[in-house]
Amino acid sequence: METTHLQTDAAFTPAERDAVYKCIFNRRDVRGQFLPDPIPNEVLVRILRAAHSAPSVGFMQPWDFIVISDAAVKQKVRDAFQAAHTEAAEMFDDDRQQTYRKLKLEGILEAPVGICVTCDRSRNGPVVIGRTHQPEMDLYSAVCAVQNLWLAARAENIGVGWVSIVRPYDLRNALGIPATIHPIAYLCVGYVSNFFQKPELETAGWLPRTPLGDVLWCDQWHGRAGSEPLLEHLGR
Amino acid sequence: METTHLQTDAAFTPAERDAVYKCIFNRRDVRGQFLPDPIPNEVLVRILRAAHSAPSVGFMQPWDFIVISDAAVKQKVRDAFQAAHTEAAEMFDDDRQQTYRKLKLEGILEAPVGICVTCDRSRNGPVVIGRTHQPEMDLYSAVCAVQNLWLAARAENIGVGWVSIVRPYDLRNALGIPATIHPIAYLCVGYVSNFFQKPELETAGWLPRTPLGDVLWCDQWHGRAGSEPLLEHLGR
Repeated sequence: METTHLQTDAAFTPAERDAVYKCIFNRRDVRGQFLPDPIPNEVLVRILRAAHSAPSVGFMQPWDFIVISDAAVKQKVRDAFQAAHTEAAEMFDDDRQQTYRKLKLEGILEAPVGICVTCDRSRNGPVVIGRTHQPEMDLYSAVCAVQNLWLAARAENIGVGWVSIVRPYDLRNALGIPATIHPIAYLCVGYVSNFFQKPELETAGWLPRTPLGDVLWCDQWHGRAGSEPLLEHLGR
Repeated sequence: METTHLQTDAAFTPAERDAVYKCIFNRRDVRGQFLPDPIPNEVLVRILRAAHSAPSVGFMQPWDFIVISDAAVKQKVRDAFQAAHTEAAEMFDDDRQQTYRKLKLEGILEAPVGICVTCDRSRNGPVVIGRTHQPEMDLYSAVCAVQNLWLAARAENIGVGWVSIVRPYDLRNALGIPATIHPIAYLCVGYVSNFFQKPELETAGWLPRTPLGDVLWCDQWHGRAGSEPLLEHLGR
């Protein structure tokens, strides 16, 4: 390819690199700290453009983005959450159920904006480069768009919470999504009073953070040969 | 919660925000520009830590990371790619097949390191917060880890290429992954001679970039009411 196709001035300085890590490490799943402040359209477009710049299998870009600001629509999504939430609570044993019921798990009504990211599995025809042997790659592409959006929002000092306690059928109904389209994520989006230092489920004692060394292997599943130099750096 | 749980000094400056966007917009799927330069272990640990900081449903952290540097293991993965690639090529009609065969789609042997990200769907027990009504959420969490790793690598001026042209069964065999564990991504990772400005499939004329306005809706699927102020910002 010609050199005009190459990125120029795109090397990262240490300061730029650190900003990216700051974003990755300070991103949180936000449920309860949303402020009513509106998100300016130019900011909303920036984070949507970040989502749209996600990698996609065979460049199929299978996503759509529905931006929800209508209170009646949000209420339908909130009702759908409530139905699923009640059902989910029953699945935990007594002790955990007590804790579960105390957790704040969504900010659908409080967040000024909801964004639903979907996946159209038929986009650009039946044969997609890179999807033949892993048909779920299109869904994964849409998830990459979610993560891009989440990080861009954090860099805009905007919080995002992913609501997955909802039946896809109910979410489709609330948003008029056809049965052929897969809802991937319903995201609550808005400025926040603060971000927590740690994931709320970690702070609440629900589950601890797994040490990275417990899930890091060399050359083979559960392989440890040759891993010492790498593991040595984990403490730092 | 107590205020000690709150992030301090974690607001993003415009320069930090711009660094995050630079990362998101300049990330590429790299197939052919890998250099043999080794990745220092401290850098490798940083990008793995970024992956490990991804959001996960119910904080289940379902991922493992296998770091591959052994040439014989890489060769097995390359063989698995080749088998799938040959099969996939047959699926395109004549014209597309010509183009397809010319595309460079992986850098498994050239990249100094491979990283396989997996998902253990049974981790932390059968009931996971947020997965009851959307059982695929654990797979999506592992995909978020992939995207974090990809962006962190870009901020380290390191290229990443996701190889999905491989049968999961073959990838499991090459890496000794049990049948109960889902391989999510095999990533080729290394310093590169350059990054392309655009996705290679876009430059090759395989598919065009979809205009963001074509996939952006308000309040309902394909809803346009109230979308003018948002769409107005897209041209800028």
